[in-house]
Amino acid sequence: MRVFIAGIDGYLGWPLAQHLAARGHETAGADALLRRAWISEMGSVSAVPIAATGERIDAYREHFGAALPFAEVNLRDHDALCRALSAFAPDAVVHLAECPSAPYSMMDYRHAEFVQSNNVSGTLSLLFAMRDHCPEAHLVKLGSMGEYGTPDVDIPEGFFEVEFRGRRDRLPFPRQAGSWYHWSKVFDSENVAFACRIWGLRATDVMQGVVYGSWCPDGDPRLNSRLDFDEVFGTAVHRFCCQAVIGRSITPYGSGAQRRGVLSLADALQCLTLALENPPGGGEYRVFNQLRDVRSLAELAELVRSAACSLGIEARVVPVANPRAEAEGHHYRPDSNELPKLGFRPSAPMGEELRRLIRDLLPHAGRIAAHADRLPPTVRWQPGPPTHPPHPTGKGSHHDQDTAAGPADGGRGPGRPARTA
Amino acid sequence: MRVFIAGIDGYLGWPLAQHLAARGHETAGADALLRRAWISEMGSVSAVPIAATGERIDAYREHFGAALPFAEVNLRDHDALCRALSAFAPDAVVHLAECPSAPYSMMDYRHAEFVQSNNVSGTLSLLFAMRDHCPEAHLVKLGSMGEYGTPDVDIPEGFFEVEFRGRRDRLPFPRQAGSWYHWSKVFDSENVAFACRIWGLRATDVMQGVVYGSWCPDGDPRLNSRLDFDEVFGTAVHRFCCQAVIGRSITPYGSGAQRRGVLSLADALQCLTLALENPPGGGEYRVFNQLRDVRSLAELAELVRSAACSLGIEARVVPVANPRAEAEGHHYRPDSNELPKLGFRPSAPMGEELRRLIRDLLPHAGRIAAHADRLPPTVRWQPGPPTHPPHPTGKGSHHDQDTAAGPADGGRGPGRPARTA
Repeated sequence: MRVFIAGIDGYLGWPLAQHLAARGHETAGADALLRRAWISEMGSVSAVPIAATGERIDAYREHFGAALPFAEVNLRDHDALCRALSAFAPDAVVHLAECPSAPYSMMDYRHAEFVQSNNVSGTLSLLFAMRDHCPEAHLVKLGSMGEYGTPDVDIPEGFFEVEFRGRRDRLPFPRQAGSWYHWSKVFDSENVAFACRIWGLRATDVMQGVVYGSWCPDGDPRLNSRLDFDEVFGTAVHRFCCQAVIGRSITPYGSGAQRRGVLSLADALQCLTLALENPPGGGEYRVFNQLRDVRSLAELAELVRSAACSLGIEARVVPVANPRAEAEGHHYRPDSNELPKLGFRPSAPMGEELRRLIRDLLPHAGRIAAHADRLPPTVRWQPGPPTHPPHPTGKGSHHDQDTAAGPADGGRGPGRPARTA
Repeated sequence: MRVFIAGIDGYLGWPLAQHLAARGHETAGADALLRRAWISEMGSVSAVPIAATGERIDAYREHFGAALPFAEVNLRDHDALCRALSAFAPDAVVHLAECPSAPYSMMDYRHAEFVQSNNVSGTLSLLFAMRDHCPEAHLVKLGSMGEYGTPDVDIPEGFFEVEFRGRRDRLPFPRQAGSWYHWSKVFDSENVAFACRIWGLRATDVMQGVVYGSWCPDGDPRLNSRLDFDEVFGTAVHRFCCQAVIGRSITPYGSGAQRRGVLSLADALQCLTLALENPPGGGEYRVFNQLRDVRSLAELAELVRSAACSLGIEARVVPVANPRAEAEGHHYRPDSNELPKLGFRPSAPMGEELRRLIRDLLPHAGRIAAHADRLPPTVRWQPGPPTHPPHPTGKGSHHDQDTAAGPADGGRGPGRPARTA
């Protein structure tokens, strides 16, 4: 299969290209290298050092015996995107080329506007380009479980049968995202579904949980994938692991009762590949909830602490005040049946994946420690001085503040010195 | 009350300023004059000639004895918008400053991208500006009944109580828009609701039906509002009236069974004023379905024909092939209870409004006739040569094609010569 990966230089894109090549697929890709720029803007680095794009392409050729056609293209450069798609003639397009950070979108108007227009216009450009240059290709577009928010009912995969005043219909499940970024993902999902409806495109929309895990294969660091840990682009599990590795406290936000779907990078690659190898029919828009486990942030923090402990690293879990406006202590039962039906079988258990992740991070503890000031949260969902609203009960509240949450340790707590391998 | 109208130079904005002034409110406004540019791009004109913005402001001062602070500002110029809001310190902001055309958004990628980014970024800019400069002000934002699409259940006002697998929740009613433009309106609704949730802004989101009617008050043409009739910016009722006035056939798209909520311009002004004069509480996001009647396109065509006939103008109704991908023959029962609860009482019956509209158009028949080539539809939802899909039954189909629909008359049918007053 010929797979075009938009966002091939990113955390998921680069391992996916390798995973697909190992399975005998031909890949090509585009990337505007914006993630590298955003991390610089944040004053941070990838915990795992990564190679320049040209070196990555060389390594790909050496390891997989195939060229990797690459275009340094922003999806919003519509003509350049059309040329790249037309030249490669893909059977499938994987769309990972979005700005993926909730905190980045919550910084100020400029960042909110950038994230929404970047993601929406890029996706629109890709849809028109596919319509005009590869209308039979299968679009696998990365969405987010965060699009659903935390409704007080179960979360189906994209659609639900509902009765309302005695009539029934199958309707899109309502979205209740929690950041400008997550809303941009909702908008893209809605645009993709519309393109399938009017033009007959075929698409799999992947509502992905929080992905964790390193990608540092067999001795060639050019194949490594990035791993961010700053407050803006680092996801909770990665921040926790990096905190443990440099001897800082593990700091879940708020009570830690927020529950999320999670899966390992290996599982994410398996799921995306299953979607690619089992395409929908023309005109079909299908939604997969892509997750393995549902865990609370407190449980994730404890799992990281325990994995670190098993490697001889002592770590404490010290909650900090929640900078976000989000429900804590809510119903959360998302369906995830479609991928198992296609054959998804979870790989290593979470503890094992976390130990591998921490082992991969240990050689880079100094690098992480040098940017440890980028770990504590500074971007707040509600502007002004920290407020302490009353404790509403139940799911109606989107800004519970658990009193158990202590002050942030500011990233300058005592902590143990970094352990390096 | 101090009311800031974004989009004050438009079809609704200019009459709303006058209507509010007549009720003793102070108004100010912003407009980037883009509607005038879009109509030029379409090679068309407003059927009713309109004055330059400066002349309008002069007329406002003469008629209402008050200055009209005006900023020629695009909402996306965030700093300029902040200055304008900060200077006027409004109690309420009415947001009418969006590109309002489904066909315009369906022309090609450039237009789709423009409409979505223009509308989404402009609304985001306004939300941040209100947060920072008038957080207590009430935002009345114009949405569209088209955001809901045509589900097979009743349409509530924004939210519905639903039971799913034995649990209940109040959820946003799912949106199923039918054009890139209508999706941009959905995105804006979602962003406005989110801003209320996290920042405590207060907003009324007006899901407005199709508005028809002229605004040509008492002898001062500087007070006239625009009235567009081209295929891209003219709504169905306005196109039908202009066709009748120049002796062309009235051309509903497809079977004409598509049902829509409609209301007159006078009713729309009454409704917007009721929303303004009855603001919600801080943090509240409420949705009003703003419509008076539900009519099929075929019924609207017949009402226009009949109103024209009563003025001595003979007209025929001749359906043309539907250029859109939309359901024809669908369930459609939208709630509209909130505005009547606030005191909304429909003004003149539809036939009377249509007769007034046609009388206002008659002096300008020559002007309309000179641009009659802009009436027939050329923008198609599905690219390529016209297709004739089979006739699926029921609401699952979004591209029914009624065989009763004859070919477009191309705007060059025989027709009667224009009747001028």
